[in-house]
Amino acid sequence: MVDPALAPALPPEVGAHALEMASTLLQVGAFVVIFLAARLLAEVLVRLQLPTILGELLAGVLIGSSGLRLILPPEAHGVVNQAWLQLIGRLADVPSDQVALLYANSQSILQAVATIGLFALLFLTGLESELDELVAVGGQAASVALAGVLLPFAAGTAGLIALFQVELIPAVFAGASMTATSIGITASVFSELSMLRTREGQIVLGAAVLDDILGIVILAVVVSLASGAELSVGPIVRLLLAAALFVIAALALSRTAAPLFDAVLDRLKASGGVVVAAFVVLMSCCFAATAVGLEAALGAFAAGLILSNSRHSEAIHTAVQPLVSLFATIFFVLIGAGMDLSVLNPADPANRSGLVVAAFLLVVAIAGKVASGWLFLSGEPTNRLVVGLGMMPRGEVGLIFLGLGTAAHLLTPALEAAILLMVIGTTFLAPVLLKLVLSGGEALRDSQAGAG
Amino acid sequence: MVDPALAPALPPEVGAHALEMASTLLQVGAFVVIFLAARLLAEVLVRLQLPTILGELLAGVLIGSSGLRLILPPEAHGVVNQAWLQLIGRLADVPSDQVALLYANSQSILQAVATIGLFALLFLTGLESELDELVAVGGQAASVALAGVLLPFAAGTAGLIALFQVELIPAVFAGASMTATSIGITASVFSELSMLRTREGQIVLGAAVLDDILGIVILAVVVSLASGAELSVGPIVRLLLAAALFVIAALALSRTAAPLFDAVLDRLKASGGVVVAAFVVLMSCCFAATAVGLEAALGAFAAGLILSNSRHSEAIHTAVQPLVSLFATIFFVLIGAGMDLSVLNPADPANRSGLVVAAFLLVVAIAGKVASGWLFLSGEPTNRLVVGLGMMPRGEVGLIFLGLGTAAHLLTPALEAAILLMVIGTTFLAPVLLKLVLSGGEALRDSQAGAG
Repeated sequence: MVDPALAPALPPEVGAHALEMASTLLQVGAFVVIFLAARLLAEVLVRLQLPTILGELLAGVLIGSSGLRLILPPEAHGVVNQAWLQLIGRLADVPSDQVALLYANSQSILQAVATIGLFALLFLTGLESELDELVAVGGQAASVALAGVLLPFAAGTAGLIALFQVELIPAVFAGASMTATSIGITASVFSELSMLRTREGQIVLGAAVLDDILGIVILAVVVSLASGAELSVGPIVRLLLAAALFVIAALALSRTAAPLFDAVLDRLKASGGVVVAAFVVLMSCCFAATAVGLEAALGAFAAGLILSNSRHSEAIHTAVQPLVSLFATIFFVLIGAGMDLSVLNPADPANRSGLVVAAFLLVVAIAGKVASGWLFLSGEPTNRLVVGLGMMPRGEVGLIFLGLGTAAHLLTPALEAAILLMVIGTTFLAPVLLKLVLSGGEALRDSQAGAG
Repeated sequence: MVDPALAPALPPEVGAHALEMASTLLQVGAFVVIFLAARLLAEVLVRLQLPTILGELLAGVLIGSSGLRLILPPEAHGVVNQAWLQLIGRLADVPSDQVALLYANSQSILQAVATIGLFALLFLTGLESELDELVAVGGQAASVALAGVLLPFAAGTAGLIALFQVELIPAVFAGASMTATSIGITASVFSELSMLRTREGQIVLGAAVLDDILGIVILAVVVSLASGAELSVGPIVRLLLAAALFVIAALALSRTAAPLFDAVLDRLKASGGVVVAAFVVLMSCCFAATAVGLEAALGAFAAGLILSNSRHSEAIHTAVQPLVSLFATIFFVLIGAGMDLSVLNPADPANRSGLVVAAFLLVVAIAGKVASGWLFLSGEPTNRLVVGLGMMPRGEVGLIFLGLGTAAHLLTPALEAAILLMVIGTTFLAPVLLKLVLSGGEALRDSQAGAG
């Protein structure tokens, strides 16, 4: 598993076998560290009656760039824990600076496995969705998505310019970073609270999917702004058309393709057919989504939706669930590991201006999404606060925006720190607030319903 | 998932988003191609009443370096299918020569996922093993392993020198490459034929484990020979001691650790606990095995053995099985993909001398392992032919030896081709012959038993 591209950088006296050994120790060790930390904190959080995903994010913080620096995603600043590299180096008989060369490869493999976990999670989310319910709430979901994009974007951008004299392009960029919703975190929280099949769950899910599509469009606009290129409308229209086509195709296949899938599955004789066949559909949809310019994760959700009417959906669920337990955990731990909490420290004067901007962004980010929960018409009783809070976590999508802005040198350090804090705040607060609101009980739900 | 090491090689006009897209398409596309090909051929093989693993190996040949060249492991010669790279490039709007730069990374990720599959397979194999039976046949397994290493090595090395005037070091290397047994292929075939828990299955499994340990020692000797270094006994003695310690520790933990594991599991409250806890044990054992200088895969087997007495072993089995169906499949497909069958073509004069040597090596490789089935004492009726054939497939271990020899420029092209043919022959013949012998029925079994 040694990346051959790294080999020339290593002196010949370190044998291939020793490098292979160091590489294996790094990867296997990372799994042990991630699973141990995630499980430990998930158990603590469950006992506090909070969602386990919060424990997984915190586990990432603990072992990531803000903590032990054992797991350091490529985009994170900072230096890998030297004691860890030395331990691996001593065990494999490889100098620790050469272990450091292998480290990047081990992280890119973790990232790939985490992505499989995200796909599996969204696939299961699609599988558990009620297609008819999802279509029925389509209008509401679209309103929530659109409002949840426009409100934080407009208020954030305008506020940064008016209150903090930020220039136009960085302000637009920061505003754009507030439009995202982490569909992975949202799906995970609602699933854990057994809320996925409720009306609120399906509205949030539909809105998060549409938000992801809007996010791609916004990203395209912002990237072309950032590169200083003329903003051309053509590619954006093409992207929107592709997205519409994809959604229509996914809905059509959800109504028609399951019987075909079942017929194929019934003819399979070799063992393990269910999970492999499901994965072929899953990965094909991811490929199709990426090919038309959308996120592969949307394809994973569509694949689940397509198979949700299969007679074998229960068997598929049983087979894919362990993949989620293992690899989606890695996904959430890596999100936490990429967050550098040192920007939170008010004792450092360099952080203070960032903290003030951050407080503003956080308020706008929360208020904008929560408000979106009220901006749709509904004849049915709906807990609008739950919808708004469900749209709140920015998670990995916010971090992707931040990474792009940093790479393009668009942001000042203070603004960078402020966006990071906004992402951290919304990501950690969403599961907590959702849990509080939901255990606040039926009384609240009823009063909200009256307002709906 | 773009390897940051590659980024500087790419001109800035290709955006990070397009590269990300190409990278995702390569990876997701590879999964689709692998699963489709493997499933298709597995279904054909099942209908021919042959083991599905043979279908997975053939699928690898079909899409790998001998076929479509869609999947090309790093060690394989040849050029990736250009139409594939162009398709990805066109979809992602990235020049296809830059897609080629991303390709190596996608293959190293496939390799990593395949390794997780191998670990999961050997973990399940350990989980399904009868510890007491394994210990009971320990003596026989040791005889089989030792004979199966010594016979092919001695006959192969001596024959190459005497009959083909091969020099000492290449001859020793070729002889060493014949000592391996692919524990993955062996475990998979026996499991599919429901033979794992039989006496023959447990002898072969025990012998394959010991063979793997001996293989590490032989590898250490051959590598130090290849590097021209003085052969020192110290490291080899240390390796043997570490191996003995590891086996003793694994056996001791198999008898004692399961209740502790169960007690911990009973206290877990967050969902997904069983599979995550099992993976912590699995990866910890892989880490320990690698740290003492053994193959990580042996650790995976030991982890399964340790948990085989757990009250939750059935739940663990259910949760880990889909991982095997998915990722061990990738492992076997990659073995097939790494095999260059063009050396088989007798029309090419360059192949002819290799083919003659190959025929010799193949006969020695088969005869040596089959003979090892008779070289143990047994009071119980045992089908010795099944034991011998079970030790036959060289699979990925043979390919690893070959890769090392090629990298060290130890082998002539003819000898390289001959070793590859020996590996291909034993790997493909073993499942076929085992199936034939076993469906040859009880008559044969009884006559063997009489001789036992």
